[in-house]
Amino acid sequence: MSKTKSPTTKDTSPESETISTTDDMDLIATSKSQPPSNTPIEQTRWNGWGNVNINKKVSPHGAKLIKSHIGKTKKLKSVSLQQVLKTVPKSRLPVAVIEMAIVSTDSEVRLRHARGQSFPDWIAMHSGDFEVFPDGVAFPESTSDVEQLLTLAQEHDFIVIPFGGGTSVAGHINPQQGTRPVLTIAMSQMDQLLDLDTDSQIATFGAGTQGPTVEAQLDEHGYRLGHYPQSWELSTLGGWIAARSSGQQSLGYGRIEQMFAGGTLVTPQGILNIVDIPASSAGPDLREMMMGSEGRAGIFTEVKMRVQPQPEQELFKVAFLPNWEAGKEVLRQAVQSNIKLSMLRLSNAIETDAHLHLGTSPSQFLAISTYLKARGLDADKVMLTYGVSGDKAQNKLALTQFNKQLKQYGSVTGKITDIMGSVWAHGRFKFPYLRGTLWERGIMVDTFETATNWRNIDEQMQQMQTAVQNALADEGEAVMAFTHISHVYKQGASLYTTYFFRAAKDHAATLRRWQKIKRAACLSVANGKATISHQHGVGHDHAPYLAAEKGQLGIQVTRDMLKSLDPEQRMNPGVLLEE
Amino acid sequence: MSKTKSPTTKDTSPESETISTTDDMDLIATSKSQPPSNTPIEQTRWNGWGNVNINKKVSPHGAKLIKSHIGKTKKLKSVSLQQVLKTVPKSRLPVAVIEMAIVSTDSEVRLRHARGQSFPDWIAMHSGDFEVFPDGVAFPESTSDVEQLLTLAQEHDFIVIPFGGGTSVAGHINPQQGTRPVLTIAMSQMDQLLDLDTDSQIATFGAGTQGPTVEAQLDEHGYRLGHYPQSWELSTLGGWIAARSSGQQSLGYGRIEQMFAGGTLVTPQGILNIVDIPASSAGPDLREMMMGSEGRAGIFTEVKMRVQPQPEQELFKVAFLPNWEAGKEVLRQAVQSNIKLSMLRLSNAIETDAHLHLGTSPSQFLAISTYLKARGLDADKVMLTYGVSGDKAQNKLALTQFNKQLKQYGSVTGKITDIMGSVWAHGRFKFPYLRGTLWERGIMVDTFETATNWRNIDEQMQQMQTAVQNALADEGEAVMAFTHISHVYKQGASLYTTYFFRAAKDHAATLRRWQKIKRAACLSVANGKATISHQHGVGHDHAPYLAAEKGQLGIQVTRDMLKSLDPEQRMNPGVLLEE
Repeated sequence: MSKTKSPTTKDTSPESETISTTDDMDLIATSKSQPPSNTPIEQTRWNGWGNVNINKKVSPHGAKLIKSHIGKTKKLKSVSLQQVLKTVPKSRLPVAVIEMAIVSTDSEVRLRHARGQSFPDWIAMHSGDFEVFPDGVAFPESTSDVEQLLTLAQEHDFIVIPFGGGTSVAGHINPQQGTRPVLTIAMSQMDQLLDLDTDSQIATFGAGTQGPTVEAQLDEHGYRLGHYPQSWELSTLGGWIAARSSGQQSLGYGRIEQMFAGGTLVTPQGILNIVDIPASSAGPDLREMMMGSEGRAGIFTEVKMRVQPQPEQELFKVAFLPNWEAGKEVLRQAVQSNIKLSMLRLSNAIETDAHLHLGTSPSQFLAISTYLKARGLDADKVMLTYGVSGDKAQNKLALTQFNKQLKQYGSVTGKITDIMGSVWAHGRFKFPYLRGTLWERGIMVDTFETATNWRNIDEQMQQMQTAVQNALADEGEAVMAFTHISHVYKQGASLYTTYFFRAAKDHAATLRRWQKIKRAACLSVANGKATISHQHGVGHDHAPYLAAEKGQLGIQVTRDMLKSLDPEQRMNPGVLLEE
Repeated sequence: MSKTKSPTTKDTSPESETISTTDDMDLIATSKSQPPSNTPIEQTRWNGWGNVNINKKVSPHGAKLIKSHIGKTKKLKSVSLQQVLKTVPKSRLPVAVIEMAIVSTDSEVRLRHARGQSFPDWIAMHSGDFEVFPDGVAFPESTSDVEQLLTLAQEHDFIVIPFGGGTSVAGHINPQQGTRPVLTIAMSQMDQLLDLDTDSQIATFGAGTQGPTVEAQLDEHGYRLGHYPQSWELSTLGGWIAARSSGQQSLGYGRIEQMFAGGTLVTPQGILNIVDIPASSAGPDLREMMMGSEGRAGIFTEVKMRVQPQPEQELFKVAFLPNWEAGKEVLRQAVQSNIKLSMLRLSNAIETDAHLHLGTSPSQFLAISTYLKARGLDADKVMLTYGVSGDKAQNKLALTQFNKQLKQYGSVTGKITDIMGSVWAHGRFKFPYLRGTLWERGIMVDTFETATNWRNIDEQMQQMQTAVQNALADEGEAVMAFTHISHVYKQGASLYTTYFFRAAKDHAATLRRWQKIKRAACLSVANGKATISHQHGVGHDHAPYLAAEKGQLGIQVTRDMLKSLDPEQRMNPGVLLEE
């Protein structure tokens, strides 16, 4: 276990370093000479997103556009790793746990597993005010390791927090103040494809396997999972399942709910083995009872996933439409008429303008704007990104049918939009890196998201944007907000709002600004006919708003169900359901 | 409420009577002059399946084939309705309930809500040995009626059984012996389309709406649900949801799980309102926690269903393949390559032969056999039924791609098989009527079903057939069994086994024969990697085998979840989970 005991000992091959130094790296690429494995945590930023070797630049006129909305910005000073390490207190775990080979109480290891990627997490990582650290981090290598840890948790009365990729944006993995010690269980060592049944198209994985490792290991057999959340580079199968993730191509490949066939959940009451049966009428679905349990019931150790052969063809394209209404109608009609696309994404006019600024040089921006203007698209124009993935004949029919719908609504497509589609596909996992780039300029950015029925989409988007834009009015601060639809269903769609605001005089004041915006954002969702989260989960941050969606009785039955498996409430308390 | 208080007062229009007297009636057809509604229960057989005006003949050489397997048969004597009515005891319900306008304690009403359609139910209905009758039947007209009934149940400590179409084949709605009175709540009066949101394609229905009423009411607006279980003529939305039903075209339209968007569940703890959101990452899915609850948590009163426009085109076809292996490979490859069919069904060789006998005259049988033999298909041949439903261009591509696969595996298709496809589609809801026809000849028939991964399909089918065929070996009795795949998934498929055996010297001895076969059948499933039921639910009959699938911990968490909503265990006790 020495390879994980310390964050500096894991092997990092020269190949992967070489790959990751270029901005054009393909995150899926991996050396064929050894089995692919997860990104070692010491190769990730301790106080930001992603691989230390990857950066994403922001175009100067993109930054200028944001500042034209929110005003001049000033960078806040960040604390150093060494300074924070000094604040890590002595572990409170019992000696029996501390001395285990799979457990580390190293300060840096504990620090690197203390926070996720929510805005408050970033404030903590830059201010140094972490508040609480886990008392230790375990790196189990098997289901029986996890069983042993949960038995010890019961014997010695400590809290357990499961940790996948540490990418939560809702406070899923943050230890809370309390008298009981906290052991974080990091699943990073369980990162291998264990079995592939090609007849049934079921792949069994260690639940700690990260996105690129999942796909690289399947690719060696010609298979694909097809789950691409924005956090894909670091997030894990277990995390996706526990927090009900959705990927960019959910229209084609389904959400994680459609992919997760069964597996092993280690609970304080023992092992819950969810059998992988294609479909069943035998009572409530254990899969669906445990998906979204966010560590409150137990820890997924091995998971069986529905996979499929690599697609014969995969394409991503862009089209522009005259306005939001036209774009929305195209999306709705496409999904409701069963056109076999793998993704549909629609930016509203503000987001379209911002994307064109952020993703281009001034001369490219001018060229695209002029091109679109000549074809009658102006300030109201919206950008639609779509894809196909699969059999060529099916793709061809899908594109033919979709192009017909696009044309009916006055779309503009051409060589330039095709290039934009490829550029989007190539850079799609690098957007999270932009947050750090903007942070360095004093531009604070965060997102929130929901889903609602088509009937409510416009009203809901309006409510969300207005709520956020006005959230700092009492301080005279402007907030810039824009929205896209990223996942579509016959019944409705998801809405994903991005917002920018200025850092305040210090980290604490900046956090207070965020809290105001976050509250306004959550209320705009909770007061609508919408979910508090379509793809980010509940965590700590959304728990206060969950009852608006589930009702008090829904909360009660969920709580009783989880308590059945964790009667002493030692599994990730405070997450999902408020105490 | 007079229209339901007595079973004889409900209006029956001359139109519907005329329609139902012909054997060729289209069950979907309905008068346009008044809103379509459910089949009144007094128009159904009190001791068998379906509408009293519909019969299905068995071909003499079909019956001969069955007898060539199981031997000569003798009809058992059946009890009359009048004889059974004399055995209905006095109601034990409190006066406060008996006097309610929506409650009937009429003996025939109670008798008609005492049993479903399982084999033991048929024995009860023909022997007269009902054992237990509900103490009364309520016919609520609203959610608040149901709330009131559950409040009274708590005040007066009686048991509640929800009743949809009374079509359970697993003992879901049978009252059990006990000291507490039993009120059956029949949902037949809540049978109307209440709202249709065409933007979001969501239809809100009373949960007691039967299949033909659902489709007729949607059809008036050009919409369709597309859920066609074998019991469709009488079964209801609430029943489908509560027992996780699957319809014949699940490949195209999805299972009930994909259709049910949300709704109102009245529980002893109050109303659980499940909001209709297209998708959510906000914790465990309440929909999936309550689907399959089989009345143990509460009663669905209003349900929101995902619907779609009527398909532009719908076709059903038949193909023959040389053997099971070829047929199975065609199915697996079609579903795994995303060919957009709406159904795929494959009869094994024994079932193919039996279907050809049962569905034809001797001269038709000879013509088909000769035709197939001339094309190289003989005793091992298997019949594959498939369909498309939707957009013409998508259907065309699907059929082109599927035909290519069929040909690769040596299929035979032609005008004659196309006719067989149409005949199947036309008569598909009449198969359940055959049971009564065979019963009259002393031929006992029942079915059971499961689902498993493709890897296990052959082994599982073998186990199931062998178990059933040998179940009466100790009596020297032969059992005829055959199997088809009726629902396919990328991961696996369902297996549906039909078996025939001889009535014994009396009803009690016949029931003992069935019990032996049922136990062997259930063990063959429970000992495999398969579900105890893919589409019939658990009820009383499968409850003893549920732990094999869910594990003891899975049973515990399900029990605790349901108890949260029904702490006094008055909702349909004994169903789903053994006491």
